[in-house]
Amino acid sequence: MSKGIRFHQVGDRVESYYLIKSAVKGVASNGKPFLTLQLSDHTGDIEAKLWGCSPDDEMTFTSQAIVYLHGEVSDYRGRLQMKISSIRPTTAMDQVKVADFVRSAPIAPQDMLEEITQYIFEMKNANIQRITRHLLKKHQKAFLESPAATRNHHEFVSGLAYHVVSMLKVAKSLAELYPTLDTDLLYAGVILHDLGKVRELSGPIDTTYTLEGKLIGHISIMVTEIAEAAKELSISDEEVLMLQHLILSHHGKGEWGSPKVPVIREAEVLHMIDNIDAKMNMMDRALERVQPGEFSERIMAMDNRSFYKPSFHEPPLDY
Amino acid sequence: MSKGIRFHQVGDRVESYYLIKSAVKGVASNGKPFLTLQLSDHTGDIEAKLWGCSPDDEMTFTSQAIVYLHGEVSDYRGRLQMKISSIRPTTAMDQVKVADFVRSAPIAPQDMLEEITQYIFEMKNANIQRITRHLLKKHQKAFLESPAATRNHHEFVSGLAYHVVSMLKVAKSLAELYPTLDTDLLYAGVILHDLGKVRELSGPIDTTYTLEGKLIGHISIMVTEIAEAAKELSISDEEVLMLQHLILSHHGKGEWGSPKVPVIREAEVLHMIDNIDAKMNMMDRALERVQPGEFSERIMAMDNRSFYKPSFHEPPLDY
Amino acid sequence: MSKGIRFHQVGDRVESYYLIKSAVKGVASNGKPFLTLQLSDHTGDIEAKLWGCSPDDEMTFTSQAIVYLHGEVSDYRGRLQMKISSIRPTTAMDQVKVADFVRSAPIAPQDMLEEITQYIFEMKNANIQRITRHLLKKHQKAFLESPAATRNHHEFVSGLAYHVVSMLKVAKSLAELYPTLDTDLLYAGVILHDLGKVRELSGPIDTTYTLEGKLIGHISIMVTEIAEAAKELSISDEEVLMLQHLILSHHGKGEWGSPKVPVIREAEVLHMIDNIDAKMNMMDRALERVQPGEFSERIMAMDNRSFYKPSFHEPPLDY
Amino acid sequence: MSKGIRFHQVGDRVESYYLIKSAVKGVASNGKPFLTLQLSDHTGDIEAKLWGCSPDDEMTFTSQAIVYLHGEVSDYRGRLQMKISSIRPTTAMDQVKVADFVRSAPIAPQDMLEEITQYIFEMKNANIQRITRHLLKKHQKAFLESPAATRNHHEFVSGLAYHVVSMLKVAKSLAELYPTLDTDLLYAGVILHDLGKVRELSGPIDTTYTLEGKLIGHISIMVTEIAEAAKELSISDEEVLMLQHLILSHHGKGEWGSPKVPVIREAEVLHMIDNIDAKMNMMDRALERVQPGEFSERIMAMDNRSFYKPSFHEPPLDY
Amino acid sequence: MSKGIRFHQVGDRVESYYLIKSAVKGVASNGKPFLTLQLSDHTGDIEAKLWGCSPDDEMTFTSQAIVYLHGEVSDYRGRLQMKISSIRPTTAMDQVKVADFVRSAPIAPQDMLEEITQYIFEMKNANIQRITRHLLKKHQKAFLESPAATRNHHEFVSGLAYHVVSMLKVAKSLAELYPTLDTDLLYAGVILHDLGKVRELSGPIDTTYTLEGKLIGHISIMVTEIAEAAKELSISDEEVLMLQHLILSHHGKGEWGSPKVPVIREAEVLHMIDNIDAKMNMMDRALERVQPGEFSERIMAMDNRSFYKPSFHEPPLDY
Amino acid sequence: MSKGIRFHQVGDRVESYYLIKSAVKGVASNGKPFLTLQLSDHTGDIEAKLWGCSPDDEMTFTSQAIVYLHGEVSDYRGRLQMKISSIRPTTAMDQVKVADFVRSAPIAPQDMLEEITQYIFEMKNANIQRITRHLLKKHQKAFLESPAATRNHHEFVSGLAYHVVSMLKVAKSLAELYPTLDTDLLYAGVILHDLGKVRELSGPIDTTYTLEGKLIGHISIMVTEIAEAAKELSISDEEVLMLQHLILSHHGKGEWGSPKVPVIREAEVLHMIDNIDAKMNMMDRALERVQPGEFSERIMAMDNRSFYKPSFHEPPLDY
Repeated sequence: MSKGIRFHQVGDRVESYYLIKSAVKGVASNGKPFLTLQLSDHTGDIEAKLWGCSPDDEMTFTSQAIVYLHGEVSDYRGRLQMKISSIRPTTAMDQVKVADFVRSAPIAPQDMLEEITQYIFEMKNANIQRITRHLLKKHQKAFLESPAATRNHHEFVSGLAYHVVSMLKVAKSLAELYPTLDTDLLYAGVILHDLGKVRELSGPIDTTYTLEGKLIGHISIMVTEIAEAAKELSISDEEVLMLQHLILSHHGKGEWGSPKVPVIREAEVLHMIDNIDAKMNMMDRALERVQPGEFSERIMAMDNRSFYKPSFHEPPLDY
Repeated sequence: MSKGIRFHQVGDRVESYYLIKSAVKGVASNGKPFLTLQLSDHTGDIEAKLWGCSPDDEMTFTSQAIVYLHGEVSDYRGRLQMKISSIRPTTAMDQVKVADFVRSAPIAPQDMLEEITQYIFEMKNANIQRITRHLLKKHQKAFLESPAATRNHHEFVSGLAYHVVSMLKVAKSLAELYPTLDTDLLYAGVILHDLGKVRELSGPIDTTYTLEGKLIGHISIMVTEIAEAAKELSISDEEVLMLQHLILSHHGKGEWGSPKVPVIREAEVLHMIDNIDAKMNMMDRALERVQPGEFSERIMAMDNRSFYKPSFHEPPLDY
Repeated sequence: MSKGIRFHQVGDRVESYYLIKSAVKGVASNGKPFLTLQLSDHTGDIEAKLWGCSPDDEMTFTSQAIVYLHGEVSDYRGRLQMKISSIRPTTAMDQVKVADFVRSAPIAPQDMLEEITQYIFEMKNANIQRITRHLLKKHQKAFLESPAATRNHHEFVSGLAYHVVSMLKVAKSLAELYPTLDTDLLYAGVILHDLGKVRELSGPIDTTYTLEGKLIGHISIMVTEIAEAAKELSISDEEVLMLQHLILSHHGKGEWGSPKVPVIREAEVLHMIDNIDAKMNMMDRALERVQPGEFSERIMAMDNRSFYKPSFHEPPLDY
Repeated sequence: MSKGIRFHQVGDRVESYYLIKSAVKGVASNGKPFLTLQLSDHTGDIEAKLWGCSPDDEMTFTSQAIVYLHGEVSDYRGRLQMKISSIRPTTAMDQVKVADFVRSAPIAPQDMLEEITQYIFEMKNANIQRITRHLLKKHQKAFLESPAATRNHHEFVSGLAYHVVSMLKVAKSLAELYPTLDTDLLYAGVILHDLGKVRELSGPIDTTYTLEGKLIGHISIMVTEIAEAAKELSISDEEVLMLQHLILSHHGKGEWGSPKVPVIREAEVLHMIDNIDAKMNMMDRALERVQPGEFSERIMAMDNRSFYKPSFHEPPLDY
Repeated sequence: MSKGIRFHQVGDRVESYYLIKSAVKGVASNGKPFLTLQLSDHTGDIEAKLWGCSPDDEMTFTSQAIVYLHGEVSDYRGRLQMKISSIRPTTAMDQVKVADFVRSAPIAPQDMLEEITQYIFEMKNANIQRITRHLLKKHQKAFLESPAATRNHHEFVSGLAYHVVSMLKVAKSLAELYPTLDTDLLYAGVILHDLGKVRELSGPIDTTYTLEGKLIGHISIMVTEIAEAAKELSISDEEVLMLQHLILSHHGKGEWGSPKVPVIREAEVLHMIDNIDAKMNMMDRALERVQPGEFSERIMAMDNRSFYKPSFHEPPLDY
Repeated sequence: MSKGIRFHQVGDRVESYYLIKSAVKGVASNGKPFLTLQLSDHTGDIEAKLWGCSPDDEMTFTSQAIVYLHGEVSDYRGRLQMKISSIRPTTAMDQVKVADFVRSAPIAPQDMLEEITQYIFEMKNANIQRITRHLLKKHQKAFLESPAATRNHHEFVSGLAYHVVSMLKVAKSLAELYPTLDTDLLYAGVILHDLGKVRELSGPIDTTYTLEGKLIGHISIMVTEIAEAAKELSISDEEVLMLQHLILSHHGKGEWGSPKVPVIREAEVLHMIDNIDAKMNMMDRALERVQPGEFSERIMAMDNRSFYKPSFHEPPLDY
């Protein structure tokens, strides 16, 4: 068994199982077809070209198929590429399953659920507590599986729950430092802010936007869900409005997708915490394989910046 | 009885009834209090100063009071101002009521309702028709009274219904010219697009934003209302999503308050029709009292532009 | 004979005549030359690759040549591509001419001219009428052939006249709904607004910008033309200024190419009508071949949006 | 006779003649009318209040009247203000005339005309030379009197000609340093670039925008004038297009009023020279009365910046 | 003794000592001079008018003077204003001093210094530790007194140190949650980021910008100070560059005053922490006197937003 | 020997020495490796492909190697490309050196140094003179070799000095036309404004940004250098601040890299002169090989504009 994709270096010879994330057919300039495969394991992705593929190959090596291959890691225009020596599809005999090949949060879903439940348990305002608990329970299964996005940050299985747990921790420590913050509102805002993504996104694997996601979006979806939850629970107090406002304004500005700017303290803070956790996740991903004294790849969602790892920092671990 | 405020000219002597829209106390530089009164009738507004007012006066001449006064129209820094010679509060004996002093749409509410109902009647898609009828009926009373805004355009009693009726006519003629348009979606979009204003605004007189209006806004309010209506009517087809998208995107862009840009043809057209009717209303208001060869006052909501009336156009009527 | 390009689907086998719109030489990675041909008929365009072309081929298969070919429609990165089996140039014997292969307006030029003439006939202001008639007559031939643009909208033979006719209809129906509009100014604005394009663009086939188009632009060209027409007709009244202003401001803003923003009512409306007709044309083009429940290609000139066809709408006709 | 307004300091007692540039009536909080007078001489402006003015005073002390007054210079909210002790209108006996009270260029119009003529004389391209000479001659009288703007820079009698002469000098020295520049085009561009202001502005005193200025603007006016001049001179070569492009693009960008960006070298340089001369004029005006170690008033047209005079620079002269 | 200014309500009668922060002379419309006084104590500010003041009064009631007065709190256009019944200057006999009247941080400077020193003590990288300690020591006195700004946030005595201490706490808790952060860099960045303000600002009372502050700014000042410190300490390692980059980029973007965007992880986080603490401080100040169910004053530095205090939150304490 | 690269035309056969500026390995669609070489001589660059290269070739044909080749100039997608017939590395026997293959300023470094020294000599303010001389002397060697940028303008050996000399000439002629300018400040600003590039850039050949360049930038580098120079020379007068401000503000705005906008007259002028010289250089480069009546390539750094050479201008020289 070879080491994970994320730890590949030019020249590595590999023989291992990989999941095909996508397979796109092309025609080479000599007129022959080829396949561009995106191979993945639970540590990352790598591109491979299958030159001169047959119609059979096109049928066999498709998205979501697991393959076994021999190959060598090479460099193509500054990015790693897998040179395939041999490749074959797998069968039941290989005893491999898709779940082994997908990235997921470093904490078990059940543990994250318990942690979030604890935050809900500590809420003092009954209205806020009941609505939050109701909605989390309603979407619990999808919530625990969903990524937080299709790309950029937390784009892996259970990424949404992981994002929420991290944000709750930041929320808690900020609330200790700034005692004017209402932790009930803040925790509820954190837990619900992206919950609409369970309807906006198609699910944990090969994530895309649903029609509802494209036309309505997770913000408006959740504002409506809160209204419906409040109705079911017969709550009509101002807390409902506050929760809706927290969701509605958490992108901070109109041009970032929020039809209203934050006008309660907790809404402003929710927006900042969301930013911090997303950015930390993106920077950590970009820098984790970078050597001291080098720059990372550019991060599109952070103004296309490339980040530097000071030469007096530690080099990355090899595995 | 004098002519209406909108037709006042410098030097006019008036004796008439007026409604006080607002009364703000000030202190002159000689230390004496005075009141700045905003007087109105059904044709417009004019400012007046009541110098050296007594505590009694402050109690008497308040917002929503109707007064009888003698005065003269003068010019103050390029705007008309009423110089008060005498002023007195009115009593039941005067037989005047607030409704006589407010601007309202030029068509009777009942006639507008009939016209809108006719458009709903003609819809062929039952889902769209039922949801539209349900929501209009639910808010019918407030809808027929509500202004379309606190200022800028259609800011008068029944202004919202009047705006909708005008837009329906534009929608109908565009649909005749561009047959690819789905009139069911377009008419429903027009009728519902601002209906959330019945909860966003405080009502027809001295209109302000409600707390819900400030924190959630009429767009998100109506998206939720459509979801609830669909639930009550047991409709879960794609039409619901389309109606929600029409509402959500009708401001056209994030920075104008729409969290999603229009991505169906009728949504783009709804946004353009809304623009046309609002702008026509603002330009007509600005130009109606302007003489040929002159410029209007600046229109804040149209990039602060001042509009010109060509010298070969007709002068405004005097009454 | 095969069906038109616009109706091609993957797997279709074709044998038909096509016009080569452009032919660009490339060198494949095996060092051999190939041609990228843009083939067209009156319904649309499709790309084809001619691998391993000879110097003779390069001379034969050039822009504006008509060819006869056998081929098969395939998919290349999500776009249709023609796989050529055999291709030959045509001769007089084939009895085909370029005019058969170009897209043009769905109404005959002469009919459009009559319709526009009727609008001019109805004008009541003699100055406006004479200038409009004078300029239309001066450029009549080019006007009836010209596209309205090199791409985006109405980019076909007689596209300019077709755009004007559609806008006149919208103008007429808006003027009925908003009686304050001066139809003389508005119709004249519509007829003249893009007339400068007869000098800005190179003509109906393979349209490019002229030097004058690039350095001066159709707006300034037409402002000057109006001045010259007025001189010839000995008209020096304010109508001249108004017509010039209508042309000058019809793009709405400085950053969109108008050195002055609209400051007369008809100029603002002209800008809005121009927008409506251009956008309707772009959306209709993008959506006409889209199946219900699918999204269109992105429309660059509309903020790169992709439009959705609701699943309860009709599928496109096959021919 | 007192020293000029520009040299006034708090506490100065004055008795002198002044021109009233504007007189605006106000009503004090004690209900009495007063006049706000803008007094001027050839060095600058100062505000004065005439408290408790009679109807007679309102008739007498109007715009363009010359008055004789005794007063004292005081400070009002950081700006100088004239406290009037006595004031009287002037008569023929006083032997004063408006021309003595207006700011004008520091060079005589005739000398500027000669200098400009010399630049035209040196042109080698006959087409450029003839068009430039033709247009300068056509508008010579107005050109020599006109200000370059209503405010901001060169807003004084003959300011336009002075601006042109300064720019010609800069153009000449740049052309010596960058020999690729075509001086014929550059000089012609400088001479004609703002010539349209003779029709855009109302004239040298109390300058406002004409209707044509507001609706068409000096750029489009001059583009048309060049076309007409070329016609009269029977010139139809590319030089005409180049001259029009120079005028059209000299504001540099759409949002600054140029419908086309510069695409010939001389057009880009013309825009930069225009900027330099305008900014130097504004900075010099702002700094000329400032003491070393102090900041100037804010310059609105330069992003509202306040400029600093280094403490090792010379103090301003007193007269 | 009356309660503090921050706790004043309309109608309160006061007799107390106040510090005059500013005194501006005006002329009333009756021609008589008056003074606008900004009175302050350690809890806040209130405006007062002194009508009909004598030349003596102007000399006496100046900035930084302490006065004793009887008055009544009234309302003027929605803001509180002090109506003065009697006022007198104070003498040594009154035993009051300026320090008693200024707002300052809620923690003693010495305690803050100790806390910051502890963070420095914990640093593991000797280069970072030595430079930080050196610079803090060099500016220690001014640092402990300085406000963090002239207005907006932490604009009080020791505001800078208080801002730093708060940020260190946030930094510490984020570093615990995101273990990839280098606390040495982050703490040093927090301690030094605004230290240049001791040269940018004039000091703790009546704070203004120095010439160096206006022309160079605290960011560039501190970048230079780090270079000089490194030289003195003979440190030329990459840590110097990192510290300079932290300072340089902490405003996040060019348009916010940072000539370089953050490209190390700690720089991005420093920017976010600075934002959080500044915004929390502004929101807390705006909301602290607001009743539940009401909106605060607008906060200029937060896009002019007005914040809402939910009606289920606690009302403010009275003292 | 063939003519220089800049004068190549399609079809030219060449046999000559070239410097390899960069060599990037690729894999063709037939799976074979190839090299993309950027060849250069002292007149320009041209791309070449070396198909089917061996591992040996990869070792031999690397950046900075000089090669001798036979080939033919061809056209690839509108850009020139070298088709290699034969290629070999060079040895000492070939007697060629890198310096012969790089573009450099048209004036000898020593002559430029003398010219700059003369400007310093003429300074009257001793503080400004001493600091300028000190810093120029300190970095003299690197300054005379450095390019002014990695691309866009003056991106050649000694480009920085050449840029400074050109700007000094413009500065001198502007100072003659606008006598209020302080030439000491202006000349010093010109000489020092980009001097920090000797630390920001890696040197004259294959120029890249240094780590210090990326994280701190030449502006902040030079501000610190001035502080250090002043310290060494024991100068603490306001001139130091002025020089620092000139450097700091010379990009004009925050979004262009200047943390402070210009607030002294000479700083504003420095920014404008920098612009003029950079733009003249870019336009001249783009237009020098363009035929009359044609457009140049697009200039990325000038809003991606393509410039036109009037058809009545001279064609470019052939050598």
